[in-house]
Amino acid sequence: MSRMPLEKKVLSENDRIAGRLRERFQERQVFCLNFISSPGAGKTSLLERTLESFSPSERVALLTGDIQTDNDARRLARFGFPVKQITTGGTCHLDARMIERALADWPLESLDTLLIENVGNLVCPSSYDLGEAAKVVVLSVAEGEDKPLKYPAIFFKSELMVLSKTDLLPYVSFDIGKAREYALQVHPGMEIVELSCKTGAGFDDWMKWLARRRESAKAEKVLASGQE
Amino acid sequence: MSRMPLEKKVLSENDRIAGRLRERFQERQVFCLNFISSPGAGKTSLLERTLESFSPSERVALLTGDIQTDNDARRLARFGFPVKQITTGGTCHLDARMIERALADWPLESLDTLLIENVGNLVCPSSYDLGEAAKVVVLSVAEGEDKPLKYPAIFFKSELMVLSKTDLLPYVSFDIGKAREYALQVHPGMEIVELSCKTGAGFDDWMKWLARRRESAKAEKVLASGQE
Repeated sequence: MSRMPLEKKVLSENDRIAGRLRERFQERQVFCLNFISSPGAGKTSLLERTLESFSPSERVALLTGDIQTDNDARRLARFGFPVKQITTGGTCHLDARMIERALADWPLESLDTLLIENVGNLVCPSSYDLGEAAKVVVLSVAEGEDKPLKYPAIFFKSELMVLSKTDLLPYVSFDIGKAREYALQVHPGMEIVELSCKTGAGFDDWMKWLARRRESAKAEKVLASGQE
Repeated sequence: MSRMPLEKKVLSENDRIAGRLRERFQERQVFCLNFISSPGAGKTSLLERTLESFSPSERVALLTGDIQTDNDARRLARFGFPVKQITTGGTCHLDARMIERALADWPLESLDTLLIENVGNLVCPSSYDLGEAAKVVVLSVAEGEDKPLKYPAIFFKSELMVLSKTDLLPYVSFDIGKAREYALQVHPGMEIVELSCKTGAGFDDWMKWLARRRESAKAEKVLASGQE
């Protein structure tokens, strides 16, 4: 079958566009995160709470991907920051070209942070670079602790695992120690934050990670310009 | 881009093999179901409980798909029925060829029922016919009631929606009426069963659907032979 070479061609075309996006993000000092999870793991809730906690002067924008509906964009637009829905119409992931198109009429100069919510899918989005500074994988405690072993690619490629819906821990059989162990087995050194968007427990850890990671991205940029 | 024609070629090749499988299943009177859901929606738990409730004389076998690990096959093998793991090694869905290969050394004559647990993914598996009599979509109440609207293809193609983990209803904001409404909007007439594999509530409804659907498959077969 001639499938693999074509898949490779599509991926290398994607990598080319993602590289171009990454350059633009770095030049304009836009910190970009790509959020990936199963359907219903709580990406939108995490982003809602994050936007809610930002000051209105924060220069943040969101792109949110779904196969159908603009439900998420409507949920996220309530906070007054720019939000755009990317409806893929059947495609199981966002790709770099969709991001480039969505950003065409947005002046990147007006942004410090771009948050991209991918299509709910723990498999395919992991193959498509969107030019982000880092991927964040969200795993709900309702899903089972074995997911890092079963879907290793996305856990390997993400800098941070957010263990979400921890308020459900008393009602599900989810071994959080094992979840951490499996994630670190797939990706040694990966950072992990446990939180509940419902109760707010652990939410500060996430906001601290976000602030720290944004600062380190800026520092890298300064360092890189110093070396030029 | 030349992508769509190749995808179509892959899918039509898949349809050809699936058609061959469907013929074999019908000839040998094997009733085959294809279970599809997000990661962690509870397919394996549903199958565990189903096997547990079968009498040992039941002629049932299972194929279980995952990207990595044979965890599910090990969980399911405890009940003494034949189980085979299909590890896709990265591929986001099962395809008909994988099923054909997995069945190569299994005498279909010895089976009445074949249950196939797909890779945890609410998107891609919906495009790949496996020769099954029916698809069953499993949606956990931890995932949110909007999923039928966001991922319409699989809800449109499934004969039954199993709303799983209903024991979590008091702890999550999931509107079961809306979930039903959205599912029926996408797929009018679709059957729906609500259950909890933890408490057993609603489990009988699922077993009744299964028994009824197996009988109707047999009746169709008898009718078809009568018309020949």
